[in-house]
Amino acid sequence: MEIDAGKQIGELGERALLRHLRARIPSGEGVLVGVGDDAAAIATGPLTLITTDALVEDTHFKLEWTPPRLLGRKALSINISDLAAMGGVPRQAVVSLCLRPELTLQFLDALYDGLLERAAEAGLSIVGGNLASTSGPIVVDVTVLGLGDELLRRKGARPGDRIVVTGALGAAAAGLRLLAEGARLDADGALTGTGLWTESSRIPVEHCLRAQLDPAPPWVLGRALAEQKLAHAAMDLSDGLSGDLLSLCEDSEVAALVDPSALPIDAHAASLTRARGGDSLGLALHGGEDYQLLLAVAPGAVPQVAELASMWEIALADVGEFVAGQAGVALRGKDGVRPLRPRAYDHFLSKSGKGMTPAP
Amino acid sequence: MEIDAGKQIGELGERALLRHLRARIPSGEGVLVGVGDDAAAIATGPLTLITTDALVEDTHFKLEWTPPRLLGRKALSINISDLAAMGGVPRQAVVSLCLRPELTLQFLDALYDGLLERAAEAGLSIVGGNLASTSGPIVVDVTVLGLGDELLRRKGARPGDRIVVTGALGAAAAGLRLLAEGARLDADGALTGTGLWTESSRIPVEHCLRAQLDPAPPWVLGRALAEQKLAHAAMDLSDGLSGDLLSLCEDSEVAALVDPSALPIDAHAASLTRARGGDSLGLALHGGEDYQLLLAVAPGAVPQVAELASMWEIALADVGEFVAGQAGVALRGKDGVRPLRPRAYDHFLSKSGKGMTPAP
Repeated sequence: MEIDAGKQIGELGERALLRHLRARIPSGEGVLVGVGDDAAAIATGPLTLITTDALVEDTHFKLEWTPPRLLGRKALSINISDLAAMGGVPRQAVVSLCLRPELTLQFLDALYDGLLERAAEAGLSIVGGNLASTSGPIVVDVTVLGLGDELLRRKGARPGDRIVVTGALGAAAAGLRLLAEGARLDADGALTGTGLWTESSRIPVEHCLRAQLDPAPPWVLGRALAEQKLAHAAMDLSDGLSGDLLSLCEDSEVAALVDPSALPIDAHAASLTRARGGDSLGLALHGGEDYQLLLAVAPGAVPQVAELASMWEIALADVGEFVAGQAGVALRGKDGVRPLRPRAYDHFLSKSGKGMTPAP
Repeated sequence: MEIDAGKQIGELGERALLRHLRARIPSGEGVLVGVGDDAAAIATGPLTLITTDALVEDTHFKLEWTPPRLLGRKALSINISDLAAMGGVPRQAVVSLCLRPELTLQFLDALYDGLLERAAEAGLSIVGGNLASTSGPIVVDVTVLGLGDELLRRKGARPGDRIVVTGALGAAAAGLRLLAEGARLDADGALTGTGLWTESSRIPVEHCLRAQLDPAPPWVLGRALAEQKLAHAAMDLSDGLSGDLLSLCEDSEVAALVDPSALPIDAHAASLTRARGGDSLGLALHGGEDYQLLLAVAPGAVPQVAELASMWEIALADVGEFVAGQAGVALRGKDGVRPLRPRAYDHFLSKSGKGMTPAP
């Protein structure tokens, strides 16, 4: 039965919505029972990885900045990133939504367009979920399961290991600032407005908005590194390098010395930041939401890791060294060593959505 | 490090909170990596069951009615109920919370007291989670994983099967109404106020409040029924018998004839409802949140199911018959057959928390 996409989900009712979603969600390999029963049943190996992360309106996203399709994609991507950082292969997801009754079926369908697309790209199946009504912020809460055997832990970094980072840093944080300045993407990820910026900045603006709204974690690399035992420790960069590296140091009981000149600052983010007279180093250190991998790699293994990464065209940067000492992060520049305090997003330190303010 | 329990979680910050929770959550059997890394790693069998359900403030509970310890217990119980209704054994859970920064550590700790207690009772381990800040309703979103081999599906009921229900119905819905009338439990589940009712009603009031705030699904029975292949179909009663039975009929492509005189109406709920001149049959049919099992059982197998249930002192009622025909539910009384329309809680049909109104 075709339902009018403009209808409010509160008018349709949970029963009709669940029936509608059930018809949209394909089954997948190893899914014995998918959505629609009391629980899903899936084929699993001896070791299963599980992670959960949520996107909460006005804490992690603003509705007017975020096409629902991209919201769906990101909700899966951030979980895939966590799973890959443990060396796992994402296989299944459950999606728990809190939605206001006045949202339309069109909104829900677009959100699921993004979820289903991203699931297909990563080879995972959506096997269950929940729909709850809320009077407040939208919540897109995803739990991802995956296969694992060799694991990449946060603990395991050794003194002498190199600090290795994939991709480039700072674009997502720059994108957040651009959203606050009125720049926008449409549901297909195409630029519809440059906000405060002129048309000549289209390319860097679109690039940074995409990094913020539709992150692309290098998830295939995590599994390959784990299988080939090429990293001593790993985690994904979600809160910003300064805070995440401190977490890895705490778990591994080592210290980290970062060479600021080696940081892979995103070129587009850097160009925009330069144009506004800002600090692109700060953006790369504290920006957050990069969803890249942070690795501890034995010096001799760095070339192999680089070769592996290059197979998927994933950039790799050697940004410093783990050393013996109390857990902590310092910058080692020409003028000596200075401690780096984490200045990560901390959604709990803010009472008024400060988590949404652009990074410095 | 001891933290002042009166502190607001927004002052403490995510990093300190996660460290605090990590120290509180014990590891468990088969948990290779628990909370604290990018993902948890658990030992699994060839078949894993997974289910997710959330409690949303002002949709499913009101904070002033609900001690946080009981909220934690219920958030796990409703998921254990779903898993058991598939024939699974709950083993692990991940807990995703959306909390306002002004809530205290004491609140978070009490919520976790309930989660950890209930987890221990059911033999499951909390292996991961997420903490997000929200400006709106609290969300306690839980995903439970479990072992399965033989499954109990919603489909599989056959014409001629008996409609069998565990426990008693209507107490949770009666409890919801009592909460609206000012009756209250403390964190230990003891009665602190009878609301509109006199002291002479203490026992039924406390009983119904407990059914609402701290449901006890008969989860051991699900697994036993699955193993012994004693039920053709099963689901848990969460939305009310009228709606849930219709769902089971739809999935099984059968009709259901319910004998109203056979319904196991909760005696305490019935006494309170009689006292207010209400309709206790309606409460049992549409009340919701009973978290009992609804089963399709071959007539010859009913005594065996009853015997099995009696081992755990779980009451069992044979309330009618599945028949061939278009999916639907009807009441068969002395005066003939009349169709029963579902009048379940539907949180999406209400724009203003109508889901919280007491059932008729």
